[in-house]
Amino acid sequence: MNVYRPPLDEFRFLLETFGYSENVHSMERFAEFDLDTCTDLIESFATYCVDVLLPLNEVGDKVGVHFDPEARSVTMPEGFRDAYQGFIENGFGSVPFDPEHGGLGAPFCVSTLASEVMSACNKSFSMCPGLTAGLVDALEANADEVLSAKFLEKLVSGEWTGTMALTEPQCGTDLGLITTRAEPEGDHYLLTGTKIWITFADHDMADNIVHLVLARLPDAPPGIKGISCFLVPKFLDDGTRNPVFVGGTDHKMGIHASPTCVLNFEGAKGWIVGEPHRGMKTMFVMMNAARLQVGAEGVALGEASYQNALAFAKDRRQSRSLDPKKQDRDAAADNILVHPDVRRMLLTVKSTTQALRGLVCWISMNYDIMHHSADEDARKKANDLVALLTPIIKSYGSERGFLNVSEAMQVMGGAGFTQDWPVEQYLRDVRIAMIYEGTNHIQALDLVGRKLPTGGGRLMRVFAAEVQELLTPALADERLAALAQPLAKEAQRLSQTTMELGAAAMADNEVIGAVSSAYLNQFALVTLGYIWLRMAKQVVDLPEDDAVRRSKLQQARFYMEVVLPEAGTFAKRVKVGKGPVTEIDVELL
Amino acid sequence: MNVYRPPLDEFRFLLETFGYSENVHSMERFAEFDLDTCTDLIESFATYCVDVLLPLNEVGDKVGVHFDPEARSVTMPEGFRDAYQGFIENGFGSVPFDPEHGGLGAPFCVSTLASEVMSACNKSFSMCPGLTAGLVDALEANADEVLSAKFLEKLVSGEWTGTMALTEPQCGTDLGLITTRAEPEGDHYLLTGTKIWITFADHDMADNIVHLVLARLPDAPPGIKGISCFLVPKFLDDGTRNPVFVGGTDHKMGIHASPTCVLNFEGAKGWIVGEPHRGMKTMFVMMNAARLQVGAEGVALGEASYQNALAFAKDRRQSRSLDPKKQDRDAAADNILVHPDVRRMLLTVKSTTQALRGLVCWISMNYDIMHHSADEDARKKANDLVALLTPIIKSYGSERGFLNVSEAMQVMGGAGFTQDWPVEQYLRDVRIAMIYEGTNHIQALDLVGRKLPTGGGRLMRVFAAEVQELLTPALADERLAALAQPLAKEAQRLSQTTMELGAAAMADNEVIGAVSSAYLNQFALVTLGYIWLRMAKQVVDLPEDDAVRRSKLQQARFYMEVVLPEAGTFAKRVKVGKGPVTEIDVELL
Repeated sequence: MNVYRPPLDEFRFLLETFGYSENVHSMERFAEFDLDTCTDLIESFATYCVDVLLPLNEVGDKVGVHFDPEARSVTMPEGFRDAYQGFIENGFGSVPFDPEHGGLGAPFCVSTLASEVMSACNKSFSMCPGLTAGLVDALEANADEVLSAKFLEKLVSGEWTGTMALTEPQCGTDLGLITTRAEPEGDHYLLTGTKIWITFADHDMADNIVHLVLARLPDAPPGIKGISCFLVPKFLDDGTRNPVFVGGTDHKMGIHASPTCVLNFEGAKGWIVGEPHRGMKTMFVMMNAARLQVGAEGVALGEASYQNALAFAKDRRQSRSLDPKKQDRDAAADNILVHPDVRRMLLTVKSTTQALRGLVCWISMNYDIMHHSADEDARKKANDLVALLTPIIKSYGSERGFLNVSEAMQVMGGAGFTQDWPVEQYLRDVRIAMIYEGTNHIQALDLVGRKLPTGGGRLMRVFAAEVQELLTPALADERLAALAQPLAKEAQRLSQTTMELGAAAMADNEVIGAVSSAYLNQFALVTLGYIWLRMAKQVVDLPEDDAVRRSKLQQARFYMEVVLPEAGTFAKRVKVGKGPVTEIDVELL
Repeated sequence: MNVYRPPLDEFRFLLETFGYSENVHSMERFAEFDLDTCTDLIESFATYCVDVLLPLNEVGDKVGVHFDPEARSVTMPEGFRDAYQGFIENGFGSVPFDPEHGGLGAPFCVSTLASEVMSACNKSFSMCPGLTAGLVDALEANADEVLSAKFLEKLVSGEWTGTMALTEPQCGTDLGLITTRAEPEGDHYLLTGTKIWITFADHDMADNIVHLVLARLPDAPPGIKGISCFLVPKFLDDGTRNPVFVGGTDHKMGIHASPTCVLNFEGAKGWIVGEPHRGMKTMFVMMNAARLQVGAEGVALGEASYQNALAFAKDRRQSRSLDPKKQDRDAAADNILVHPDVRRMLLTVKSTTQALRGLVCWISMNYDIMHHSADEDARKKANDLVALLTPIIKSYGSERGFLNVSEAMQVMGGAGFTQDWPVEQYLRDVRIAMIYEGTNHIQALDLVGRKLPTGGGRLMRVFAAEVQELLTPALADERLAALAQPLAKEAQRLSQTTMELGAAAMADNEVIGAVSSAYLNQFALVTLGYIWLRMAKQVVDLPEDDAVRRSKLQQARFYMEVVLPEAGTFAKRVKVGKGPVTEIDVELL
């Protein structure tokens, strides 16, 4: 049983709320993509996901991928190859890419919203086009004409798929420890080494697979500044097999239909992307979009879990309302939606999911502006917001997504724990999002150690100005003031925390490690408050009995009064500093 | 890979901290059980768990139970029957029971601490003796001599096992909706109906299974006041099969080696326990101990996850310390224990796990006092504390346990998500504890709706007096004051919240439903603070370089400064009241 349906109205509402027509459609690149065109595009993409990918979700989980140690190859569960072929035949793999390379050229914000539906329908499947898209981004930004001709069009069309080959047994977070070697030979290099946890490193859905590989040249300096980036295809131009082989697949708690592989490079031919020793720069192009996508996975599985929990709750009768007026005396028990705690759980999931989706929309729209706006100031500002908010959506989106799936399970009681409903799979599938694409603490270090200091705090000033610009009129609007006041208070506290943290970190670098995770969560809660106020402002002029207006204002209230106060706890944890974790005897742990 | 070892030193430390010798050993019933005897008993029990049950944990998860629809019977994974037979041959099933019925007569606090090891080694297995123990409790309190002779000794020895058959398709939380019927016939009854989610309703580990069944007599009034309680064995005295059959087993996210069954009563013979229509009273005897046990499951899997995460962390090198003085220049990277966030995660898990275990010990010791003390006042006070704190340990123990297993997984990064380590299984196994034995919100309703009003707030006054008695000297002791101050502040806030909630609930009953879950968490955080202060007081006179003293004081500090502040968020949520969840259009959810 899975009742999931794509929240198409929400997507359109968000594009309107964040000013799609003025901010994105107005750019030359997106002249053909008016709001109706975009929503039609999302709808046709979503329909394919629901019709073809969703039915494969459960079988993918149950059957999983098959590794053949003789052939050193991976076979997908039945139906996945056909689903992938249909996916690319419909052009769904190339929605956001440059028409010059065969892409549709749609806005990134549109493809990002649509991708949520793919994750919700089949998270395992979604990771394959997701990685391919990341590789296309990296090549569009970094590859020369030769490489582009060799690889780009096949990747854009989806005929070939991509991977990101970073992690090695001795290093995941700390890529400076990479030992895979690349020896020059003619116009290319020969790569030798072992990578682990490589998603979709092998499968039978497409005809060729291209690995983006981090490795060291013979003259590389040690550490992160000696990493270069290479493209290594499974099959070479002449059809011969390049010696890069899967050594095994991992058995995981979830995403069973996403092959997670050991990948052995045995003198495989590769081509360098970008400059020698500057591989991290290339890789980061890929990682930023991927991090946003991972945050969106939390939204996707939170939404799908919410819908299933709500369907269960609508059907379930149990106990009596504590308010005698609400009791249904024609039945033996009341519908559980009368119980305030059931509503609390559902509203927690819904209000955070909708706000996180709003944040995904806002960030991805700034992505479009940063790349395609004719206005340099607009590009700069958009770039600052994307840089600042990407670690937040990745970390808080994945963490809140995990908690939301668990909360939805709680609404369903024992039923949610069984395989009769999809929520238990969602819980297993969503958990990895807190770990991969940089663990959530790495996001926090990125936020505090890299993004906050940039330009003497410029990114935070850009964000704070956006918040203030929204707050000032809202505080003066009696219809919005009750929502704006708690946000104003928490935004003020966040400024205070940020200043204090900056001063503490200048005196002692280790403070960042100790409190950045708490700081990120504090920041995230304020950010989602900002998103809620924007959504509230968007509906406040509608007639009072309008369903969208009522729903949004009720959720916004719940968010501000029930969810947002947790920011205070995180602020206290930042204030405490490093003492409780550094002034210990580590051997007594 | 699973490095788990029973925390035997912790068990002894807690028995000392909570005054085992003065409070329990001093009672006539436990004269033979001095502290050394108890710790020896726990050790031999724990050794059996580690040697026999732990090796079956992974196979139990992978293979699961087998249901044969022809025979309508369940087969356990290989090795489980032998492990169970060895378990009862060693007398481990009868540790806390009355010697009059063949039990060992050990204190409940001892068997409860020992049970943690069984859950940690094999949670699925542990549920079978756990349910049997609950049934023995119910029968010791309620059964007449005839029934005792018929069933009790076989259950105490573990030769037969027990179940709790409550839930039906239309009712779990709301047992008033039960429809299973019991028709009188001679000295017994014939039961007809369907139960679902019956744990260990069938298996091949023991020779007979006795179901404690809630059902209605023909003259039963409707609702919860018309429920009676029956014993229904799988096999009758003459060896014939009683017509009670398993109709299927559920497929679940975790506890795969614990059969969860549909159970059909097809005119099965049963014997009534206790008075007609008073079945809930009998069942509640069973449920209180079971609820404590469920909270302890969160401790067990939190502890096991912690130990594995710590072992991983000790071995893993990644990145550099942010403090140059801590960098290990002989290696390519530092051990991850230098990273403050890794310590933060480990300390979160450890400090909450140790405090929850302390709470389990304190409650279970009060259990012994309440049943066996010669002093009536002591019995009353102990009874009040058990009643008040049982919903807290069940709810917060299971929720924190779930979060702790997840946090331990986060320490391990991708490795924790794979089946190479046991943590992913623990996450799947522990999640059910938030749902069964009364969902966590049911615990909150029990706390606020039933326990707080008892005797005009007497239970809370007993608890508050305990806290104050500990706080007053601690605040005046310069070695403890820094720990006592945050607790004093939060204890004061809890009193305030309790008073305000009482007043609000009197005016409007629905408030309880809306905020009781938040209130329970606030209460739990203060309770764990109390436990930490008791543990700190226990060690404060030891030499300053004593390892136990250092470890406990460091953890206590972490708890008070980093964990406890969350109580403030929950207090705010209680204060907000019911508006955000009741003043909504429920059809817009």
